Amino acid sequence: MSRKLHLALHPYGVGGPGQHGLWKDPRVAKDASIDIGYYLRQAEAAEHALFDALFIVDSQFINATYPPHYLNRLEPLTLLSAVAVRTRHLGLVGTASSTYNSPFNLARRFASLDHISGGRAGWNVVTSFDTGTARNYGLDEHLDYTTRYGRALESVEVIRGLWDSYEDDAFPADPERGLFLDPDKLHALEHRGEHFKVAGPLNLSRSPQGQPVIFQAGVSEEGRDLAARVAEGIYAPGGSLAQAQEYYADIKRRTAAHGRDPEHIKIFINGGPVVAATDEAARLREREIFEEDNDLERSLALLGRSFGAYDFTGHDLDAPFPDIAHLAEKGGRTAAGKIIERARTENLTLRQVVTSASEFRRSPFVGAPATVAETIEKWFAAGTFDGINLAFRTFEELDLFVDGVVPLLQERGLFRTEYEADTLRGNLGLPVPENRHTAARRAAQG
Amino acid sequence: MSRKLHLALHPYGVGGPGQHGLWKDPRVAKDASIDIGYYLRQAEAAEHALFDALFIVDSQFINATYPPHYLNRLEPLTLLSAVAVRTRHLGLVGTASSTYNSPFNLARRFASLDHISGGRAGWNVVTSFDTGTARNYGLDEHLDYTTRYGRALESVEVIRGLWDSYEDDAFPADPERGLFLDPDKLHALEHRGEHFKVAGPLNLSRSPQGQPVIFQAGVSEEGRDLAARVAEGIYAPGGSLAQAQEYYADIKRRTAAHGRDPEHIKIFINGGPVVAATDEAARLREREIFEEDNDLERSLALLGRSFGAYDFTGHDLDAPFPDIAHLAEKGGRTAAGKIIERARTENLTLRQVVTSASEFRRSPFVGAPATVAETIEKWFAAGTFDGINLAFRTFEELDLFVDGVVPLLQERGLFRTEYEADTLRGNLGLPVPENRHTAARRAAQG
Repeated sequence: MSRKLHLALHPYGVGGPGQHGLWKDPRVAKDASIDIGYYLRQAEAAEHALFDALFIVDSQFINATYPPHYLNRLEPLTLLSAVAVRTRHLGLVGTASSTYNSPFNLARRFASLDHISGGRAGWNVVTSFDTGTARNYGLDEHLDYTTRYGRALESVEVIRGLWDSYEDDAFPADPERGLFLDPDKLHALEHRGEHFKVAGPLNLSRSPQGQPVIFQAGVSEEGRDLAARVAEGIYAPGGSLAQAQEYYADIKRRTAAHGRDPEHIKIFINGGPVVAATDEAARLREREIFEEDNDLERSLALLGRSFGAYDFTGHDLDAPFPDIAHLAEKGGRTAAGKIIERARTENLTLRQVVTSASEFRRSPFVGAPATVAETIEKWFAAGTFDGINLAFRTFEELDLFVDGVVPLLQERGLFRTEYEADTLRGNLGLPVPENRHTAARRAAQG
Repeated sequence: MSRKLHLALHPYGVGGPGQHGLWKDPRVAKDASIDIGYYLRQAEAAEHALFDALFIVDSQFINATYPPHYLNRLEPLTLLSAVAVRTRHLGLVGTASSTYNSPFNLARRFASLDHISGGRAGWNVVTSFDTGTARNYGLDEHLDYTTRYGRALESVEVIRGLWDSYEDDAFPADPERGLFLDPDKLHALEHRGEHFKVAGPLNLSRSPQGQPVIFQAGVSEEGRDLAARVAEGIYAPGGSLAQAQEYYADIKRRTAAHGRDPEHIKIFINGGPVVAATDEAARLREREIFEEDNDLERSLALLGRSFGAYDFTGHDLDAPFPDIAHLAEKGGRTAAGKIIERARTENLTLRQVVTSASEFRRSPFVGAPATVAETIEKWFAAGTFDGINLAFRTFEELDLFVDGVVPLLQERGLFRTEYEADTLRGNLGLPVPENRHTAARRAAQG
């Protein structure tokens, strides 16, 4: 098989969504989410196993009901910069909101990480939709849907423009000519758009990979369109094999429709595997974890977050899903809208909705190492993903995957046996974007 | 002497203000300002020499006339985070503008660096006064003086509030009680002020030093007042011994007037020493450097930056200083105002103004190691500073200071022979601020 599988590691410290009980595990350090040592150990293990990237998600609003890892965790870019100097090949993908960061600051910080890591930075572009986050940034309400996505697209365009401020040969640093900078190779941006006015230039040059890699997590119509326009990597939603196939084909088709090579957008699904010595032991363990982490109270709270921290506890679990369409419409919460639509169409109760939401997050990769390797190959061959974003509850589970499953993926010719490159683009098989001003100059000169 | 001298290192890569020719030195790597290896080597040397901190300054606007180090350099916090995991005792002070960053983002990023470094983070609070920077952040003009300083003060207050979101014992993580977080120890901020509305809480707990250390560089009346209110460290302007004494006494007096212990604000002057085998060799070298880096054209450009990138080249150098008071008044450029006032009072020509501005930046610490150590002691004893911010042109000059001068300072009982603590506060002799909610609870309980 010539298509190559990509693997990323997604650390969840003391426990992310659906892992509320993880911190009680004696093997989990109680301060994992704020201990850089935990992330360095994850990163070193991932690099040892030839993974493509470390993937750090983020959020900015909390209250006491949030998952343990959300309550108290490191900011993604400061975290990844520390990891950069302790690794050499691992990609470093950090999440940052295009809603509540100025493009100039984001451009600088990711370009800086890109230099520090020698060309391994990636930006996972998210928009922030909850009222709690808005209230941390001076607003009383979150921005509406169209504004958020328009702003995200324009933010990426501005930031890419800033990343091209210097052409690659802008610094001759030639003492004989007395020329440190060639001023013709420095370009201001002078962007004036609907959401942003940014003059530039950026005070930072390009790294060996030209520009950091753009990741996105498009689920809604507008999200998928944004991904197809600008993303080079996607953090995909998950679900069944058929759902993953539909998503994969749709994104590749949309990308081609925007005139882009569909090979230049890599789709990662959420893998969170459960590996054990035998299939039976793995299935038992998976059920145990699932039941422990998905008691009704927590699942209802998680479901409520899609509706702006709505409290479902007063509702009858076995009555039809409550009529809260106004909450889904407020500011365009599309995930919430989809839940309501499905509940109506399929005539579901609240219990059925909450159970199926938990099921959706269940990993398809459960079993002994051989079973997991086989399942991964089957899904990969079926056109469901280019890569998997893996999360492990403990270092023991991480080691089981690395020592047990990775060698089998390599034997099957699915996964690399050495890094292809020193940059994230190189390992993902993505092209280095030519500097736009150099390209324009070349075009003008024929 | 019981007062202890503090030393910080201030890396200038390929050359900061007044160092336009440094990049031509064959000992200076042409990519020093964007090479994390350069900063790691500086940091490791500083820690080996028991320095208190690495001090990273910043700016966000450039054009082709700017000093080489400004043109292309790493963003301070991503830089310092990488340094954090390669050092154990060195303080990490990063500059960030309170004008163009939201308090929530700044609070998170510095708190994150504080955790990654185990309590060694410091924030150098600056306000951004130039039009070029404003144009990178959506504005056509910079904010006026009062707005900038009011915003800076409120920003520090909000950020300190966010840093106290969690009390120190907020996470019992007790499996027996099933209690990861004690929700009574998590506090929203609900700040609604003139410049900011920030609800909180911050999703990050306090580090071993409680809160990052606040640095500032107050020169103007309002700047000095802001420093006296909130700063725990100051990056002082420099000048003659008498000027430094006046500044030192003024800041300590203002700090006491705000009800604070004047020992809890540490004043660092810009030291940039020139050390050589003999006094004569050092003086020659200093003059050579000074003349090389302060040709009239560059000095005029540097002076022009105080007036919003004003171009002085058309003016007669030996005529009275030009009448450009309107540029100083625009948005309250206080440094420019002071220059004009002095030129009028002392009846100075443009040449005299530009020469004296260059002289002001000249280091008082020039000579053989014994002479430099003696001069440092004399200035220190005269009440001019608590610490020195040192910048070296080459690693050879850094080594000469570390191997030649530091042991003499230690012999004189001025400088430590081992680190007092693992945190920046500990080494600077600053107290750990008690969490405000814990303090309130204690007060309420009598």
